[in-house]
Formats: sequence, C-alpha cells, structure tokens
Amino acid sequence: MRRNPIAMKTHNAVFIAKSLDGYIADRSGGLDWLQAISNPNADDMGYAQFMEGIDAIVMGRNTFETVCSFGIEWPYWKPVYVLSRTLTTLDEAFRGKAELIQGSLAGVLEELHKKSYFRLYIDGGQTIQSFLREDRIDELTLTTLPVLLGGGSRLFADLPDTLLFTHVRTRIFLDEIVQSVYRRTREL
Amino acid sequence: MRRNPIAMKTHNAVFIAKSLDGYIADRSGGLDWLQAISNPNADDMGYAQFMEGIDAIVMGRNTFETVCSFGIEWPYWKPVYVLSRTLTTLDEAFRGKAELIQGSLAGVLEELHKKSYFRLYIDGGQTIQSFLREDRIDELTLTTLPVLLGGGSRLFADLPDTLLFTHVRTRIFLDEIVQSVYRRTREL
Repeated sequence: MRRNPIAMKTHNAVFIAKSLDGYIADRSGGLDWLQAISNPNADDMGYAQFMEGIDAIVMGRNTFETVCSFGIEWPYWKPVYVLSRTLTTLDEAFRGKAELIQGSLAGVLEELHKKSYFRLYIDGGQTIQSFLREDRIDELTLTTLPVLLGGGSRLFADLPDTLLFTHVRTRIFLDEIVQSVYRRTREL
Repeated sequence: MRRNPIAMKTHNAVFIAKSLDGYIADRSGGLDWLQAISNPNADDMGYAQFMEGIDAIVMGRNTFETVCSFGIEWPYWKPVYVLSRTLTTLDEAFRGKAELIQGSLAGVLEELHKKSYFRLYIDGGQTIQSFLREDRIDELTLTTLPVLLGGGSRLFADLPDTLLFTHVRTRIFLDEIVQSVYRRTREL
C-alpha cells in the first residue's frame, strides 16, 4: 500500500506537547499549563529545527482557531492547510498564510503531494487522531511536561490496531521536560 | 495536611509500564505487548532496585488476580496488601504472602504505617488512580514502550486537580524504552 515511489517520499510528522497523562489542552481548552516550567531563555525544544525539515503544515480547525485566538503575529513560515468539514472560507486576514483543505485524508495527501509538499507537519488532537486511525503518521515527537492535568483534550484516541514505533532519541529540556522522537515501524 | 512527622516519612511510589498512549493493559486485559521489545538479557529496568527501597506493596484486586493468573511462583519478596471492596478472604495459597486490606485510603495507610511500612509501592491502574485522586502519590516511575495500543486499561483517569511533578531522571533501556521518574512537587 505504501510502496509506490511517492509514498516512499512522504512523511507525516507530529510535534506536540502533552501532559504526563496525555492531554494536549486543559479542561477549558487552555494551554497555560505549558508555561508551568520556567523557560527563561525561551528554549524552543527543537521546534525550529523540526519546522525546517517539513514542507507544509496540516492542522485541524480547532488548532487553527486556537492559534488565531492568541492574537499574535502569524507564527508559521511554511504553508498551512486547515482541515475542516465545517468552514467554507478562511478570514481575509489569513490570505496567503493558510488555506482550507477538505476531503478524505487520502485525497488531502494526494492534493498536497501534487504541490510537492511531501514532508508534512500534522497538528491538532483530532487531526492527529484521524491520521493515526488510518496509520498515516510516520514520526511522533512527544514533549512531555511533568504535570497531571487530570482532564482536557486527549492527544490519543482509540485505534483499530496496535501501532508499533521505534524510539529514535530522547532529550531532556530545562531538566523537567522529556522529549522523545518515535518513528513508525513499517514492514518494507 | 502532610506535615506531621509520620507523613514526612511516608512515601507512596508507582512503578509501572505503559504504552505511548497511556495504557497499562490491552483491550483484553493482556500484557503480551510488554514483550514487544526484545529483552535478551532480561534487563529488569530498575525494578529490583526500586523494590529494595520499599517496605510493602499495595495493589488492587485486578492486579493481584492478574499476577495469580500467571501461574508463576509468587514474585514478591515484600509484604503484599490487596485492596478490595469485594473479596472477603484470599486463597489459602497466599497465606503469608498477601493480605487483604480494606477501608478508606487514609485508613489503609494508617494501618500500614502502624506496622512501620512507610515506603509503599502502589500498583494497579484503579488503585493508582484512587491514590492520585486523593493526591497521595509521591513518586511516579513510568516506563514507556514505543507502541500505541489504541485501547485497553488506562493508567490515568480524571482528577479533581492538576498535580505538578518534578522530573528526577530519565533512562533509556534496550534503546527503545524510556523510563522517567517524577516526584510530586509539594509545598513545604
């Protein structure tokens, strides 16, 4: 299924922070807990380097709206595609920054591959979950903060099958944050 | 609340393996996935050393019955207390090995502290969850295998409050397994 030449070039990667108990947002959808660990020198924990390696970002509508709600300058320097079944247009303000994309994951990927975007950053809980359900995630970079949130939005959801990964590396940031990179183990 | 001299000596520790998505048993309650990573020299990943540091084990009935179902020799060399609301006696075979213990967690802890068991290994998903709900876990040793099970018994459940921990250390075993130790951050 994934042996054609294009499939070999494709790479869908996740780079996300989670709590010890696997939440990516607290009960009110908030991200304040990400500031629980003091980061005086604004260590980006490999984010810029990760972003250098990708061609485009695919994010869910929730994540897109969360980023927009920050009221900061648009933080991405790669093309952003917003997966949505409900939105029909994006706000003017995002023209040239983000584009809506719709359809099945297979269709979305085909469309992006045609634009020569092969290395994709898959972001947002529900989007990641839908990619995992179809076993379309090749790499996970999980950055774990030492906190039990006890509720909120989960990173992972039920899957039809067990998915084996291989541990690539683990780094510790600020003495407190454990970041592990995993690659999907696929039969060749 | 935890400042009396006995409380200062007490220590409730978790030492448990989990999948990347936070499960401790698969959908059928099975633990076969723990063998997914080849361990030719039977590295115990710090288990014996951890056990040396504890006085007694408190485990839930499910965990007790799972251990019994293995049909192996009794694997513990410390006193085992089985928390159960439903069992009234333990099988003869466990006399001198395990004892039933009942009541509130506060009562259970008081009873064990009176026996001079202060450093406790808290085991089993539901038991760990009930200790966490009352913020009675002081240390977590989480050993993460690189697999998404996609379903099963969760290690963590909802909590009334966010619980902050401090990262103590992380070790990698067999190149694949990431073990992190966390200590509960408590105001002194």
